[in-house]
Amino acid sequence: MLSRRLFARCLSSRRVFSTLNPVTDSDVTHFTRILSPSSVLSTLSPVSTPHDELDIYNTDWMGKYRGKSTTVLKPKTTEEVSEIVKWCHDKRIPIVPQGGNTGLVGGSVPLKDEVILSLANMSNVRSFDPVSGILVADAGCILQSLTDYVAPYDHIMPLDLGAKGSCQIGGNVSTNAGGLRLLRYGSLHGSVLGLEVVLPNGTILDQLTSLRKDNTGYDLKQLFIGAEGTLGVITGVSILTAPAPQASNNVILALPTFDNVVPLFKTVKRQLSEILSAFEFIDRTAYNLAVKHGQGRALSDEDVEGAECFILVETSGGRREHDEEKLADLLEHLLEADKPLINTGVLAQNPAQFSSLWALREGVTEAVSKEGKAYKYDISVPAATFKQVVDTTRDHLRSKGLLNEDAVKHVLGYGHVGDGNLHLNIVAKAYTPEIQAALEPFVYEIVASHRGSVSAEHGIGAMKTHALPYSKTEVSIALMRKIKELFDPRGIMNPGKVLE
Amino acid sequence: MLSRRLFARCLSSRRVFSTLNPVTDSDVTHFTRILSPSSVLSTLSPVSTPHDELDIYNTDWMGKYRGKSTTVLKPKTTEEVSEIVKWCHDKRIPIVPQGGNTGLVGGSVPLKDEVILSLANMSNVRSFDPVSGILVADAGCILQSLTDYVAPYDHIMPLDLGAKGSCQIGGNVSTNAGGLRLLRYGSLHGSVLGLEVVLPNGTILDQLTSLRKDNTGYDLKQLFIGAEGTLGVITGVSILTAPAPQASNNVILALPTFDNVVPLFKTVKRQLSEILSAFEFIDRTAYNLAVKHGQGRALSDEDVEGAECFILVETSGGRREHDEEKLADLLEHLLEADKPLINTGVLAQNPAQFSSLWALREGVTEAVSKEGKAYKYDISVPAATFKQVVDTTRDHLRSKGLLNEDAVKHVLGYGHVGDGNLHLNIVAKAYTPEIQAALEPFVYEIVASHRGSVSAEHGIGAMKTHALPYSKTEVSIALMRKIKELFDPRGIMNPGKVLE
Ligand SMILES: Cc1cc2nc3c(=O)[nH]c(=O)nc-3n(C[C@H](O)[C@H](O)[C@H](O)COP(=O)(O)OP(=O)(O)OC[C@H]3O[C@@H](n4cnc5c(N)ncnc54)[C@H](O)[C@@H]3O)c2cc1C
Ligand SMILES: Cc1cc2nc3c(=O)[nH]c(=O)nc-3n(C[C@H](O)[C@H](O)[C@H](O)COP(=O)(O)OP(=O)(O)OC[C@H]3O[C@@H](n4cnc5c(N)ncnc54)[C@H](O)[C@@H]3O)c2cc1C
Repeated sequence: MLSRRLFARCLSSRRVFSTLNPVTDSDVTHFTRILSPSSVLSTLSPVSTPHDELDIYNTDWMGKYRGKSTTVLKPKTTEEVSEIVKWCHDKRIPIVPQGGNTGLVGGSVPLKDEVILSLANMSNVRSFDPVSGILVADAGCILQSLTDYVAPYDHIMPLDLGAKGSCQIGGNVSTNAGGLRLLRYGSLHGSVLGLEVVLPNGTILDQLTSLRKDNTGYDLKQLFIGAEGTLGVITGVSILTAPAPQASNNVILALPTFDNVVPLFKTVKRQLSEILSAFEFIDRTAYNLAVKHGQGRALSDEDVEGAECFILVETSGGRREHDEEKLADLLEHLLEADKPLINTGVLAQNPAQFSSLWALREGVTEAVSKEGKAYKYDISVPAATFKQVVDTTRDHLRSKGLLNEDAVKHVLGYGHVGDGNLHLNIVAKAYTPEIQAALEPFVYEIVASHRGSVSAEHGIGAMKTHALPYSKTEVSIALMRKIKELFDPRGIMNPGKVLE
Repeated sequence: MLSRRLFARCLSSRRVFSTLNPVTDSDVTHFTRILSPSSVLSTLSPVSTPHDELDIYNTDWMGKYRGKSTTVLKPKTTEEVSEIVKWCHDKRIPIVPQGGNTGLVGGSVPLKDEVILSLANMSNVRSFDPVSGILVADAGCILQSLTDYVAPYDHIMPLDLGAKGSCQIGGNVSTNAGGLRLLRYGSLHGSVLGLEVVLPNGTILDQLTSLRKDNTGYDLKQLFIGAEGTLGVITGVSILTAPAPQASNNVILALPTFDNVVPLFKTVKRQLSEILSAFEFIDRTAYNLAVKHGQGRALSDEDVEGAECFILVETSGGRREHDEEKLADLLEHLLEADKPLINTGVLAQNPAQFSSLWALREGVTEAVSKEGKAYKYDISVPAATFKQVVDTTRDHLRSKGLLNEDAVKHVLGYGHVGDGNLHLNIVAKAYTPEIQAALEPFVYEIVASHRGSVSAEHGIGAMKTHALPYSKTEVSIALMRKIKELFDPRGIMNPGKVLE
């Protein structure tokens, strides 16, 4: 049943492009008329940018997906975006919206030769209200720069992730990025208050309200959160920032066995309550790789001896002495228990240590990419099964004879326990069809057996369109197609992504 | 321009019903076949329920809207809902989904003789996971009963509101209810994780995932949150509950002048940080009415002397002694300031006092309904303008000669400062066309001048369809219509609500 559906999808994927047109010289001429010269990069005349200058736009962060776009447009205003999209709509030219290009599912680069519409030149803060904490910004603002912007007002962004130095708020919204603060500040579906979007026919949808509450009809903006650029181009974002915690602290805990993770989570949640802001899981392999590649401060040999996995706990609260007391009581309680859930815990003693403990966790992504080519599965499964999922995958690869230095070097897991979100990474020497075939649908079937999600936070992009049926029913997928058809009947917005 | 649009709308409102059919005896016969006898109430044969037994279903909570439905269906399962909807779809019979019927915009009762589909018989909890806090429940579960259900597991519902004893979780989701915990736990767009919905053609959409994170395509469930039953019938809800705070406390503050509200909010936010869970505004008139009708514990005469308004502050946190210290420090800081922002503050000393302070705020709705007939405007405007909006409205009614015992008795305001959400209430002896004409579009124009929302949390229902253009652009409204058309091409789901 499923395979028949998959076959039908492959056909329709080719069909997606059959009614679309490539960019021509005359289109580029038009773009040079409506945009300033520095906003048009194209290998076509009259611009003739050297090919290699387009490489970074055509290649994704993992170096796994490569497009062949001839033309990158970098508009400076919403009106310019609207003009571009209108033209492309009329000429049936496909568009890939691109933010910081840090996406991990190949959604931000062309499948073929789509125009790349980069938001990089739209990076102004439009307004910030320090009383309500509501920030309104261009979609192209880099997450880190927004964090810096609100810091003097004692506010923080409600999301944080390893890619913060490059990813853009528009890209975050388009992928519904989760990241490291979700446990505390919730998802973007809650914290994004309004959006400005250029629809696939060029119309500007202004829902850029800066109201915390507005129940006037269907909440259309929600559809663009996580739509990965397939329903329109986000040009502005209104988002609720949070008051900055006065004090943050963290501790890394070494656990003798994975079985202690869930009981530990319960205990920590109860004792730290509202100041618990992260509870991150790192398995031994992930930890070792992070250390090997110089990501973060290694614990002492003694500390890590006999540890099967690690948990990074972060607190953030309004008063340092209260938070420290809670954290100290927790550690005491943990270490003095009859059957301790942890071997040891190392508490950050100063801001530098705080950062380097975080770097251990945040640096896993980086370390993995230095170690080899990674197959990344970002899945939702019950937290209690994290280890089992990693082990089963490793065993499976071993049984296929693929677990060795020339094929798969490591299978590891890390992620957000509070959210049931496991990052399963398979680090290989190179991307090969054998490994791919061994992993899929194998991994997706494991996920489906747990009624999990094949994409907890990274999205579907180009990488997982075929895997959608493992997490969504036929009724849901059919309805998604209707929504796509309603917004983008010509299919010009990021074709082949999310839905084939 | 606007008035021309409004005229067009009135015409289209009549058109909404022109293709729809009333329930007939033969439909009722069919319903008795697919449902158990106690699930069908109808004045038609073969059931012949006495007319007055249908009154409570036909009349809204305010006694302002009255439908003429002949038939109320109370299915017990999702499949039964699906069967009903399929039949109505085929026969083009309009349906009003009804939860606890506590809605305040006339959305839950028929405009004409639509079938009322009550969820009251679907009230089972389907599952609860105390580790993740995820609760899955039938849509007909009453909010209070869910609160009670999760309490022994040390969890609380992420929302709370005055109507909790009657309103249903499905109704809460359908109205995107805000309420008293929004400041702390965010909106339902963030905390609702999944929905099961019977679509207007009877198909069951199963998006009842119990995953905290799932980025696999468009987040369709979001469209039903706040759709007020116009896109389908919600039959099941998966929602993230929060760990119960170990300690809650509250204090009522009397302010000499409204001007101090925003500065006070800033101070309180900074000092209480993550334990601040409510910051509620009550103006003097609202306070007096609550006291008059025995809602909550009155402060002493001395305490209220010279108070222009009141603020109720609630804290909830993980450790009583820490919270008490923070609250005590705040009060000290406030009272000892050179120019104090408050006259006085009364701290709850025990659970009974805690409840009766809350009753002052929660009881305003009740008190208003005892005092007379209320015109209720639930608007988003900047917190700094709350008083001005109330005063301007009162002055306007006075200038029209409508401010007296026989017309408008009181104009008052209360609401959620943190959310910029003001409940503007005009309490009249009776609903009259003169008062109505004096209030609208007057109030909506004030809202529009602040770029606010004409419905912060109660929704649009039947009451505010004509006011939508004050808060939403034409592009937005046109897109909403397309969504409605996509989901419900025959227009059978709650016709005339949200969109005319
Ligand atoms: C080191 C590292 C760590 C990461 N950690 C996390 C993590 O913890 N949690 C997490 O969720 N993700 C994580 N990611 C993935 C990625 O960073 C996020 O998904 C990020 O939000 C993408 O933002 P971007 O601006 O780079 O978007 P891009 O990569 O440029 O685009 C992503 C998708 O959104 C679309 N898009 C981008 N901008 C717009 C726009 N303005 N309008 C419409 N569509 C648009 C693109 O077409 C594409 O489909 C990580 C990535 C890296 C490299
Ligand atoms: C005393 C009092 C205090 C209140 N306080 C607040 C408050 O603080 N914040 C706030 O936001 N609201 C408040 N309200 C308004 C109201 O209680 C809420 O909107 C509530 O969420 C409605 O739930 P209900 O089950 O009574 O829905 P109903 O009144 O029965 O229905 C409301 C709307 O939702 C639709 N609907 C109901 N159930 C379903 C379903 N299962 N599927 C599809 N559509 C459905 C109906 O068709 C209707 O359009 C208050 C009301 C009262 C009477």
